[in-house]
Amino acid sequence: MGPGPSDVHPRVLSAMARPTVGHLDPTFIGLMDQIKELLQYAFQTSNELTLAVSGPGSAGMETCFVNLLEPGDRVVVCVNGVFGGRMKENVERCGGTALLVEDAWGQEVDPDKVEAALKAHPGVKAVAFVHAETSTGVKSDAMALCEAARRHGALAIVDVVTSIGGIPVMVDAWGADAVYAGSQKCLSCTPGLSPVTFSPRAVEAMRARTGKVQSWFLDLGLVMSYWGGGVKRAYHHTAPVNALYGLHEALLMLKEEGLDRAWARHWTHHLALRDGLEAMGLHFLVAKPHRLPQLNTVFVPDGVDEAAVRSRLLDRHGIELGAGLGALAGKVWRVGLMGQSSTVSNVLLFLTALETILAEMGAPIVVGAAVPAAMAAEHLP
Amino acid sequence: MGPGPSDVHPRVLSAMARPTVGHLDPTFIGLMDQIKELLQYAFQTSNELTLAVSGPGSAGMETCFVNLLEPGDRVVVCVNGVFGGRMKENVERCGGTALLVEDAWGQEVDPDKVEAALKAHPGVKAVAFVHAETSTGVKSDAMALCEAARRHGALAIVDVVTSIGGIPVMVDAWGADAVYAGSQKCLSCTPGLSPVTFSPRAVEAMRARTGKVQSWFLDLGLVMSYWGGGVKRAYHHTAPVNALYGLHEALLMLKEEGLDRAWARHWTHHLALRDGLEAMGLHFLVAKPHRLPQLNTVFVPDGVDEAAVRSRLLDRHGIELGAGLGALAGKVWRVGLMGQSSTVSNVLLFLTALETILAEMGAPIVVGAAVPAAMAAEHLP
Repeated sequence: MGPGPSDVHPRVLSAMARPTVGHLDPTFIGLMDQIKELLQYAFQTSNELTLAVSGPGSAGMETCFVNLLEPGDRVVVCVNGVFGGRMKENVERCGGTALLVEDAWGQEVDPDKVEAALKAHPGVKAVAFVHAETSTGVKSDAMALCEAARRHGALAIVDVVTSIGGIPVMVDAWGADAVYAGSQKCLSCTPGLSPVTFSPRAVEAMRARTGKVQSWFLDLGLVMSYWGGGVKRAYHHTAPVNALYGLHEALLMLKEEGLDRAWARHWTHHLALRDGLEAMGLHFLVAKPHRLPQLNTVFVPDGVDEAAVRSRLLDRHGIELGAGLGALAGKVWRVGLMGQSSTVSNVLLFLTALETILAEMGAPIVVGAAVPAAMAAEHLP
Repeated sequence: MGPGPSDVHPRVLSAMARPTVGHLDPTFIGLMDQIKELLQYAFQTSNELTLAVSGPGSAGMETCFVNLLEPGDRVVVCVNGVFGGRMKENVERCGGTALLVEDAWGQEVDPDKVEAALKAHPGVKAVAFVHAETSTGVKSDAMALCEAARRHGALAIVDVVTSIGGIPVMVDAWGADAVYAGSQKCLSCTPGLSPVTFSPRAVEAMRARTGKVQSWFLDLGLVMSYWGGGVKRAYHHTAPVNALYGLHEALLMLKEEGLDRAWARHWTHHLALRDGLEAMGLHFLVAKPHRLPQLNTVFVPDGVDEAAVRSRLLDRHGIELGAGLGALAGKVWRVGLMGQSSTVSNVLLFLTALETILAEMGAPIVVGAAVPAAMAAEHLP
């Protein structure tokens, strides 16, 4: 119940243990084609250039930046948490300039500020933002931000690492151009892969490059000779075969459940958790309309040693929570209800365990109210 | 029996299917410490900076180059196959200049040419070479090449992707400075991880950098805040937890067998395969003293459709062979005897299957001699 990796279903773990075949084996090529289709479903896109980068989410992030940017490019980077800060690093390491639009941690990215930045700096190459900030649990308005980018002729680079599978991610409807995700959050696959998708506009921008991509490993022009359509695949790097078995199975499970139902499940369990935590007297960092159902950031009650609480939860109940990052270190917990971890039993077990531990520590909480509140909320739509 | 991935032992596959824990979980941190020690054994090094990069071998290669090079640096790059060519690409994408020392595909890197290049270009930052060229099956003299680098004050960057676990890799004895490996060759782990190790001299060179590493994902200064010693690990990226379970198990199996015995096993089975293939009338690309036991490149007999042979081997016997790359496409097969695939039964099955298929095709081979020759060779030391 931390910020990911989430619980991995036995079906996915079993898939990981299937015999390894060659990365150019015809049966494996067929599996890659299926993964591409399943990813198009998860991203809600018909983008041809949709694949899983052979590395974790930060490799997916870097894939977007190194393929689109060239030295001297300017990018509006929205920073309202840790991962916006990483985008800035990526832009600068590509030789670009990051024009920061900053919002407080826990606040959504303000589309008006983005619009103002785009007006103030005509000709920027891209707008980059995080849809679901894992460091704070806030959701930003991807549709509005992509529209602002498009109005000013800029590409939209979007981080959906924590959102995909948990809340609506609508790549084509948003008009997003370069989007990267993680395998280990609401998709409940093992960590290590980063699904990405690129719009035709982004592909055109890559074709118009004057210099080579600074990373050989992440150069999509080369990667596509392997992932691209057709039976004849050219070798680029050795794909992480077993990890892709796992991703395939996790995506199949998402398809079987259906995106709508997966989103509803995340929402329902969030409501139960929220009502339980608030009944206990705890407060959320993020304002109600912008909360992520899959990542709930709550303040630690006054006088409580937050690390000791996390240790007891882990040691006694096998429950992992996320700690606060940056300025929020020591001040909040990040409670994940992602993918397979988003269940009623997790909500109830966690509330019971947390209440017991906080009561033992003499924390100023309301005892006995959390579970009834969660149970009452559980049947909400 | 291709150039990797090799067969993965059920112990490793089962390890991959263990429940995913958090990448900052205390038990997982303990496992990472063990992986580091086991990698030090596999590399034969006491280098403190030894870890597994969260991506395939090409990410490991890039890790070495982006962390050591800065724009304007010159590197002697030895090219005698596909992977030397990739090193050149890496140098250039870091803004460096690659001074090529070229040898024919199938030839070892000539240490005299390297010495001459170092004399002709004083002050180069590094010498980069591939110990075991997977595209040809040739072994180069790592000791001589590292010594040449050191004599001229250059760092030695060494690719041991295909050698580690199959033939002696002696990082400290060689005096190699930046070394990257692959998980899926003679270590017989699943593909997707790249063990790397860096000498104190390399670490010093990284500390002396004036600019940031161009890759955020592969920046070892940041990665080490996670992999570095101590209980308190800082989050950099989400480690591929299950893949690391697999690597841990594969490295344990190597330790249990012992490096000496693993090398001897690869050698013995190579001799059996070699004698069998030569008895059949086939010829090796590489001269005897420079052959890799784990990757045997043999010429396709005249008039034989090599792709049809590979298809029949795969369809009938589940045996995968590697095709020729570059100028060798259509002319050779690459027969792997790597890690768990290096067994007597694989040698005998392959010889029998190949002989049958070639005979069916009317190829000019000696029939009936391969298996007896292999059996006779099998007990050699």
